[in-house]
Amino acid sequence: MKKLVAGIDVGGTNSVFGLVDETGKIYAEGSISSVKYKDFDVYLQVLCDGVKSLSVKIDEPHEVIGIGVGAPMGNYYNGCIENASNLVWQGTLPFAAKTGVHFPGIPIVLTNDANAAAIGEMIYGGAKGMKNFVVITLGTGLGGGIVVNGEVLYGHDGFAGELGHIIVTVNGRECGCGRRGCLETYASATGIKRTVYKLLADHIGDSALKNISFNELTAEMITTAAIKGDPIAIEAYRHTGEQLGRALADLVAITVPEAIFLFGGLAKAGKYILEPTRQVMEENMLFLWRGKVALRLSEINDKNAAVLGASALAWKTIKEQ
Amino acid sequence: MKKLVAGIDVGGTNSVFGLVDETGKIYAEGSISSVKYKDFDVYLQVLCDGVKSLSVKIDEPHEVIGIGVGAPMGNYYNGCIENASNLVWQGTLPFAAKTGVHFPGIPIVLTNDANAAAIGEMIYGGAKGMKNFVVITLGTGLGGGIVVNGEVLYGHDGFAGELGHIIVTVNGRECGCGRRGCLETYASATGIKRTVYKLLADHIGDSALKNISFNELTAEMITTAAIKGDPIAIEAYRHTGEQLGRALADLVAITVPEAIFLFGGLAKAGKYILEPTRQVMEENMLFLWRGKVALRLSEINDKNAAVLGASALAWKTIKEQ
Repeated sequence: MKKLVAGIDVGGTNSVFGLVDETGKIYAEGSISSVKYKDFDVYLQVLCDGVKSLSVKIDEPHEVIGIGVGAPMGNYYNGCIENASNLVWQGTLPFAAKTGVHFPGIPIVLTNDANAAAIGEMIYGGAKGMKNFVVITLGTGLGGGIVVNGEVLYGHDGFAGELGHIIVTVNGRECGCGRRGCLETYASATGIKRTVYKLLADHIGDSALKNISFNELTAEMITTAAIKGDPIAIEAYRHTGEQLGRALADLVAITVPEAIFLFGGLAKAGKYILEPTRQVMEENMLFLWRGKVALRLSEINDKNAAVLGASALAWKTIKEQ
Repeated sequence: MKKLVAGIDVGGTNSVFGLVDETGKIYAEGSISSVKYKDFDVYLQVLCDGVKSLSVKIDEPHEVIGIGVGAPMGNYYNGCIENASNLVWQGTLPFAAKTGVHFPGIPIVLTNDANAAAIGEMIYGGAKGMKNFVVITLGTGLGGGIVVNGEVLYGHDGFAGELGHIIVTVNGRECGCGRRGCLETYASATGIKRTVYKLLADHIGDSALKNISFNELTAEMITTAAIKGDPIAIEAYRHTGEQLGRALADLVAITVPEAIFLFGGLAKAGKYILEPTRQVMEENMLFLWRGKVALRLSEINDKNAAVLGASALAWKTIKEQ
């Protein structure tokens, strides 16, 4: 009988899930709202029913042998989501334990989104066979999944790898965390929007981006403009790569990965983000590592990346049992 | 029969060694010059003879069951010292393999000084029972030993944890590595000397440190002056703590240790280094970790610390066999 695992990604707006085999092939997918059910237990009931209903869509005989979950503030150690500011349920949510009631007898493992992305890269993507690497998720914010000697670096409390909140500029941009100058205020979809507006303030000359309000502007629009040769858009990516490249050079000194993978919305800009980041990273690295640490785009298909990452966590757990 | 291991610390000037039991008690010690023997094989012969001769000094029947080595640019993975700029022998030195010829049949393991210090803290010192912690060595330079889930973070090439070469100030002080603004240009014995001279340049008012030339000045003198209330010396420690505290706040976001231990010359300044470092680290940490990561002085007796650290690596290896 075909063995599958469920991958569940808990997002601020939607929760998506799928049944996945060990090669990363998704057999069925679904999603529910993350905001509609204010009661966490009701939400979990609907979510688990949704996961169970996927089996009906698959003709091939199969069994679900594990569940992996990626969630904001997901703690691998205890299976809880802890005080996630972008979810409607507050406090500590025993996600894995309560999901276990709906799926008795199979392993249910949970981690945060960036760690799930890293495990996805390791199991299905460009990090296959690597023991030491980093995945940087460039979405609304910036996340990091650090793999050391084949294992995710969780740290003492389960929340290590918070690369978005390294301070790269003293007294820099205001961050949602209450501090200033965090990496994600520069290197993220939100960060590059701020950089575009800073550049439009500082420079004269034409740019297609002058017609778009801050709230309307998306990273995708900036990428489209860059591809068309818009100087502000290209410069915005250069600034983004500069901040990211400096931070990655320091990260290399601390963890010495074999490769660093860029993942998520901004990574879709390809060379526009990759080249300036690589250049500044190389310039700022200690001589020991120059030319030795690969900076690459994630090889995980972005459309299903979150579900794949979560499912990879389940496969990793099952294989190690 | 009493079981002992040999701990060997290869320094730029001297190589010290000792026979140590599993509680950290040193039964005998010795040292040889690291500069006198230009031929590496001759040096190693003298060193190994020195280690063997220690046994004669010990009345109790014993056997040496392993050897741990701490060395600059020591690579745990291959047992080699690789291109250490402060040693007289250049290139890649197969230290562990060649030592094995003199001590057949017992494990011989090598790592760099800071990693040895971290293992020493774990086996004999304040990090007993901890799975995630960091040791910062504050000597002529700054080194880092990062322990993740009970194991030293070696990274892809064996040289991870190079915290002295995180860049803390863009276009900052010149560093011996050829770049600018590295943490160790501020937070180290050499760094605080530079800070004293900067403060003497910027400020008027009296200071005992005005009578000492740059080359004569030592971190110990600065500590003595601070204890006597010298404002320049106290301010120099505050500056040092500020740079170190910022870097440690970022390090916490990446690795989330349970505790960070300060070790080496500057750590002897006690509260003068600890308090400003802790204050700035707390101010700069993400809310998740405020008040939760201990910053402490190493509990390893500094006099024998290098030998103890190296011996701890041997004990760790033996216990895991």
